[in-house]
Amino acid sequence: MSAEPRRSLSAAEVAALTGGRLVGPSDTRVAAIAPLDRAGPGDLSFLASARYLPYLERSRASVLLCVESLATAAGDTARIIVADPHAALLAVLAVLYPAPAWTPGVHPTAIIGAGTQWSDLVAIGPHVVLGRDVKLGRNVRVGANCVLGDGVTIGDDTELYPQVTCYPGTAVGRRTILHSGVRLGSDGFGFVPGGGSDGAAHRKIPHIGRCVIGDDVEIGANSCVDRGSVDDTVIGDGTKIDNLVHVAHNVHIGKRVMILALAGIAGSCHIGDDVFIGGEVGVSAHCNVGPGARLLVQAGVIGDIAAGATVWGTPARPHRDVLRATATLYRSLDRDGHDDA
Amino acid sequence: MSAEPRRSLSAAEVAALTGGRLVGPSDTRVAAIAPLDRAGPGDLSFLASARYLPYLERSRASVLLCVESLATAAGDTARIIVADPHAALLAVLAVLYPAPAWTPGVHPTAIIGAGTQWSDLVAIGPHVVLGRDVKLGRNVRVGANCVLGDGVTIGDDTELYPQVTCYPGTAVGRRTILHSGVRLGSDGFGFVPGGGSDGAAHRKIPHIGRCVIGDDVEIGANSCVDRGSVDDTVIGDGTKIDNLVHVAHNVHIGKRVMILALAGIAGSCHIGDDVFIGGEVGVSAHCNVGPGARLLVQAGVIGDIAAGATVWGTPARPHRDVLRATATLYRSLDRDGHDDA
Amino acid sequence: MSAEPRRSLSAAEVAALTGGRLVGPSDTRVAAIAPLDRAGPGDLSFLASARYLPYLERSRASVLLCVESLATAAGDTARIIVADPHAALLAVLAVLYPAPAWTPGVHPTAIIGAGTQWSDLVAIGPHVVLGRDVKLGRNVRVGANCVLGDGVTIGDDTELYPQVTCYPGTAVGRRTILHSGVRLGSDGFGFVPGGGSDGAAHRKIPHIGRCVIGDDVEIGANSCVDRGSVDDTVIGDGTKIDNLVHVAHNVHIGKRVMILALAGIAGSCHIGDDVFIGGEVGVSAHCNVGPGARLLVQAGVIGDIAAGATVWGTPARPHRDVLRATATLYRSLDRDGHDDA
Repeated sequence: MSAEPRRSLSAAEVAALTGGRLVGPSDTRVAAIAPLDRAGPGDLSFLASARYLPYLERSRASVLLCVESLATAAGDTARIIVADPHAALLAVLAVLYPAPAWTPGVHPTAIIGAGTQWSDLVAIGPHVVLGRDVKLGRNVRVGANCVLGDGVTIGDDTELYPQVTCYPGTAVGRRTILHSGVRLGSDGFGFVPGGGSDGAAHRKIPHIGRCVIGDDVEIGANSCVDRGSVDDTVIGDGTKIDNLVHVAHNVHIGKRVMILALAGIAGSCHIGDDVFIGGEVGVSAHCNVGPGARLLVQAGVIGDIAAGATVWGTPARPHRDVLRATATLYRSLDRDGHDDA
Repeated sequence: MSAEPRRSLSAAEVAALTGGRLVGPSDTRVAAIAPLDRAGPGDLSFLASARYLPYLERSRASVLLCVESLATAAGDTARIIVADPHAALLAVLAVLYPAPAWTPGVHPTAIIGAGTQWSDLVAIGPHVVLGRDVKLGRNVRVGANCVLGDGVTIGDDTELYPQVTCYPGTAVGRRTILHSGVRLGSDGFGFVPGGGSDGAAHRKIPHIGRCVIGDDVEIGANSCVDRGSVDDTVIGDGTKIDNLVHVAHNVHIGKRVMILALAGIAGSCHIGDDVFIGGEVGVSAHCNVGPGARLLVQAGVIGDIAAGATVWGTPARPHRDVLRATATLYRSLDRDGHDDA
Repeated sequence: MSAEPRRSLSAAEVAALTGGRLVGPSDTRVAAIAPLDRAGPGDLSFLASARYLPYLERSRASVLLCVESLATAAGDTARIIVADPHAALLAVLAVLYPAPAWTPGVHPTAIIGAGTQWSDLVAIGPHVVLGRDVKLGRNVRVGANCVLGDGVTIGDDTELYPQVTCYPGTAVGRRTILHSGVRLGSDGFGFVPGGGSDGAAHRKIPHIGRCVIGDDVEIGANSCVDRGSVDDTVIGDGTKIDNLVHVAHNVHIGKRVMILALAGIAGSCHIGDDVFIGGEVGVSAHCNVGPGARLLVQAGVIGDIAAGATVWGTPARPHRDVLRATATLYRSLDRDGHDDA
């Protein structure tokens, strides 16, 4: 781990922080967190699943967060029994690895357009370019080399990592995190199609809609959200987007949606609240995905998906049907195999 | 919408602009364009398909562009009957939302290499880095923080949004648009493979070919086009590429090709004119795709595709066969289901 | 080709360089390398496969590298018979197209944090931002507009193309190449999930692990490697990664792995040495892929894969089984077709 821990905690203090039950010595101290196989004296580690028992032997962790069913496996190491070791870890991380402090200020190499305003405190990094009439809220941090076009607004406590681009008019909410290389508000892929026998050109449709990102959103590295054509593109509050995701023009995404890496949502889709979209999923244009639906890895959605449905495959179908169909196909294969023999 | 309209039009003027037939009051004025469900007084909206009729009730648009078959649905609102509302919109957009003016000039923070030239007028943004012997045509705009290597050429009227990279020797045509984060001319993925029992290293093949982009091309945010190894990589005139697309070394892409987001074209493929490549499609190395072919969403192409063919699935097959095969598979599933009952 | 050749070679010298057998005139000279169909007098070209014989007619190359079986096709052109024309090309490329020289130095617009150190010689480009306590080895080149966070370390002879971001604590080995737009060390997609009937927020898991890149690695344009949550994310020596690839938190990738464009490796996967991962492949979280396995284009891996296995499809199965299953399905389709007739 690269981050330097700032202080240490006793096993009893870890138990109090996590609401767990301590088994073993209460005065053992930890100053850092490490994975089982690399944990040494002074480290806190965690055991969430029997899958990781093989690593336990190599572990020299001083204190272990673990679930009840695995508590006896750890011998006489100080253990703290919790329902969910990953959630418990959050409380300890906040104490041992507090978020790095940041220094407010505007770097002298930043270029600031006329009419641009911010609320103290802000941090504007080196070589940042802000257009005209940009509005930054309180505690906004804009990383090195970011470029924000005219009229962009960024809400309080939002952080932009280096090299983010916001096209003119983009609006970003509060407590949102934009990772490096995120592009917000680029023109959607909209053309009046040409081609045909006369080889007419595709004519570009100008885009006048906005890209609107809610509060408490996180968008991963190099992901792209286009602006709307006439309507806006909207990402709802609390939605989390992984790396290299594409969200096209006029898409409306609800609250607390999870979108994994390399997924693509085509134009004018509506994605309900609490939807889960797996890695490399594709959703075709104009599809509605109901609240709570789950689109499994690499699914290809070409029609509407009902609320709460779990779908897989291309074209996406109910998960259970896909499992039965592939089982049937491969069972017939086994039969054919016997026939051949 | 973020963009501010500059002027207003009467319904009669809209009809004249779009070549449409006006029904209803001719002196109603509009100053902005909005989607049906959000349009208010003074807004022009559009109704292209019966799918959007439910939004019509909520609409308070002053003027509506619509197709003949839906013209009666809109009550006594001023309507303009056109064959294609999206195409008609182009004419109105150009008047109500003219492209933003740009200010020519070279920002004092730009770094300009020896021998680099441009034709007036150009706009070179803050923190741009131009190598040696770069050539920019007339009306070229290079957005903030772009980096253009030695010997790059950019044709007249081409626009680079912020944070684009062109590796040395890249050539870009006229009236082309490169969105933020586009990478042109990076080395292709070419190695003399190692591995095997002795664990030999993969040896990098130096890339000396160019990346050549035609006229009237648009390339979406964070898309990548590699340079050729010995041959060039070529994107034909009028081709449009969406976000997060990968085009590998030595690929030749024809004219007016459409490539949707997250598609990947592997090395040395030849893609004919007017091909349509859907989102998340993959084309394996050395494949030829004939003119006018259509590769549907997520198709995986592993061999040549005939001109005009429509293919789907992995490995890609004729669309009709894929539909029949999956229908057969799921029908047998239904039968099995009955057998089980 | 954009690169200017610096010198010329006789056919005899090419034969000596490549360890090949010369047939034809030994004093013919070449100064450049070109693909068959564009090669003219003074050019060296190559013929590695019968697939390219149609181009041979158009070729005016002065010297040809070719395999034994095609040697007679080239008439009386000077030919050099080699086992692997692509490997032979490497030796000639190194002489005719030596790597461009670079000028050491620190550009005056670079921003350098306190405690940052380097070993001569280095090249730090315009508008680069280096945080505190960054360590650069000898011959490190950092391209224009790169941003390296606090505590980043870069090994000897490593090159970063423009616009790369390394988050704080990232460690990169020696002789490694990072293409433009690469993002190393961004937070992984880790949340304690919320949702459910009360609409609880997803809670972000702070990431304290590092992103560690080995020696002799190459990472393509706009690819992303997240930092670990508690453990590190590790890319082994000699591994080559194409454009637009996603590597999630806590992933361990072995040596000499090849990962093609648009592939995604989800969290905590372990990928063995010498694995081949095709374009647009997806590997789900917590999967182990054994050494030497081959995951073919667009495969979707949802479980462990044995060493040396070749798999395809979603869910990924042995390649042979997938071929048999699809053959069976489409054969039944043919039968159904006959039945219908």
